[in-house]
Amino acid sequence: LKLKEIGEFGWIDRIRGGCLIREDTILKGIGDDAAVFFTRPDMATLVTTDLLVERVHFLKNATSAFNLGYKAMAMNLSDIAAMGGEPREAFVSIGIPQDCSIEFLDELYEGMKHLAAEHRVNILGGDTTGSKTDLILNITVVGTIPPSEVLYRHAAQPGDAILSTGFLGNSRAGLHIILEGIPIDAPFLQELVDAHLKPRPYVLEARFLASLGGVHAAIDVSDGLSSDLGHILKSSGVGAQLVAQKIPVSENLKRFCARFSRDPLEYALSGGEDYTLLITVSPDREKTVRKAYEKTFETPLFPIGWINDSQKLEMVSPSGALNKVTASGWDHFK
Amino acid sequence: LKLKEIGEFGWIDRIRGGCLIREDTILKGIGDDAAVFFTRPDMATLVTTDLLVERVHFLKNATSAFNLGYKAMAMNLSDIAAMGGEPREAFVSIGIPQDCSIEFLDELYEGMKHLAAEHRVNILGGDTTGSKTDLILNITVVGTIPPSEVLYRHAAQPGDAILSTGFLGNSRAGLHIILEGIPIDAPFLQELVDAHLKPRPYVLEARFLASLGGVHAAIDVSDGLSSDLGHILKSSGVGAQLVAQKIPVSENLKRFCARFSRDPLEYALSGGEDYTLLITVSPDREKTVRKAYEKTFETPLFPIGWINDSQKLEMVSPSGALNKVTASGWDHFK
Repeated sequence: LKLKEIGEFGWIDRIRGGCLIREDTILKGIGDDAAVFFTRPDMATLVTTDLLVERVHFLKNATSAFNLGYKAMAMNLSDIAAMGGEPREAFVSIGIPQDCSIEFLDELYEGMKHLAAEHRVNILGGDTTGSKTDLILNITVVGTIPPSEVLYRHAAQPGDAILSTGFLGNSRAGLHIILEGIPIDAPFLQELVDAHLKPRPYVLEARFLASLGGVHAAIDVSDGLSSDLGHILKSSGVGAQLVAQKIPVSENLKRFCARFSRDPLEYALSGGEDYTLLITVSPDREKTVRKAYEKTFETPLFPIGWINDSQKLEMVSPSGALNKVTASGWDHFK
Repeated sequence: LKLKEIGEFGWIDRIRGGCLIREDTILKGIGDDAAVFFTRPDMATLVTTDLLVERVHFLKNATSAFNLGYKAMAMNLSDIAAMGGEPREAFVSIGIPQDCSIEFLDELYEGMKHLAAEHRVNILGGDTTGSKTDLILNITVVGTIPPSEVLYRHAAQPGDAILSTGFLGNSRAGLHIILEGIPIDAPFLQELVDAHLKPRPYVLEARFLASLGGVHAAIDVSDGLSSDLGHILKSSGVGAQLVAQKIPVSENLKRFCARFSRDPLEYALSGGEDYTLLITVSPDREKTVRKAYEKTFETPLFPIGWINDSQKLEMVSPSGALNKVTASGWDHFK
């Protein structure tokens, strides 16, 4: 089935199902010039947006349409999480090349709707249009947060502990497996690939952490630990010292690196798209925060270092030497 | 100057200036995982988004970068206006091909910022990324409106007068002048081209009309009168009768059509991108609304017909015959 057979408005009717999963504050979703809804009284509003372009961010053949939609939604939910917020409404703009089948697009929307529904996020609108060459996907997510609980990048303070909600580097290893066509002959390789194709946004965890008190700054790992922590440092006008042996590296990543003679630490430092949260916590609250988190989510927060006033990012190596870490994450233009 | 010389973050620093023009309700604009701001208490929130793709929506050589940015912003402000709302915050996602110069991009942002500032709209964030072939621009605008004043497409009622805030068909004539390479040897041709390249959104007018009372439904003319009025009719479950001789056609369009043997009525009915507002007004309020509008804006609202319960769109021709009008606006896929 091709889009030209059902037309733009037939297509909009087709995607409408499953978009509205929470109606209480919604006056109008898909089907007018703009969506209309109520934000929550006394809450601040969060807005984030991400643009994905074929051949830059994804290859149609290297992922399923479902996973592509899922991941695009995950990236945006993760940005709301990185502010400590609750995602509420999503808007999807899509530019569709002529040769794109409706079955592919249905699956893409299934992926988005699946993750959106899991987090009680409505898809309230968007824009649907053609594209000459590449598939284009832009998602905007609106979230909400008590204004006193926002986790800004600029709020890290010297003395803060730096913690990660999950393992780092898995996604980059998964990407390498895909790009280098490494045969997936063991479950751990598939798990690394899944970490890249279907990352999980730490939405519940972020809301929990923001409301606990004592968490100062947060960012999600999209470009890589060194690069994303670098954003916190620059915004906050501070430095940090990481401890190499504390960086959380999964058993899967260790096995991958052992087999292909790679350095797990390099993957953890410069690999992006893990979408774990990096948070900084005031030293007097660190223990409480870690304990409460572990009790609630049955998984630890990984301490990886401390904020200091050096304005530099350094790492204590296993030998005890202190080395400068350069931000080596992704720059779209350099 | 090329983007790769300044990098993604150098670029973001470059566009930051002039984005925040109203700070009172803003906690964070550009520079974090999401923007943070307060919406207005007791107000509903409006969100609209539009995706523009090179070679589908625009040709880089057929317009200036300034006008491209201006028009992309205008389309979104117009969507908020078409709900009766006040636009407040904008988010810009851009996908940039490697050969795109920074000078072009600076101009593009100048165009967006110019119109945004005119309407007191902040640019609070977005996403900046690469693109393999085409320039991609997605703008999301957040607006606000008292919930009782929203002008939905579905709210037209039989008996309502249908009115337009401006002339119809000028933009399509301008597009034809550009695409057919007609030499611009008279000011009226330039004015038609300007109507296409730099349309004006009816933002103040929409807010005024929505707050007056008696205006039921509204839509902006993006696809064409027959197509966009068709959306109101379908959503509201009603029909309409237009009067050919009442359709507002500019002197410029008449001169263009006389010179090139075209039918002005066809341009007015099926030409899109005029971004005038079509509104439907209850018969007992029509006179008051038109008078108040004319007094405030020193320009008339053009009455073009009536809503009825026929579920058909028909037009009384100059000869008095009643003809069916088929929606002939743009469909991105058909």
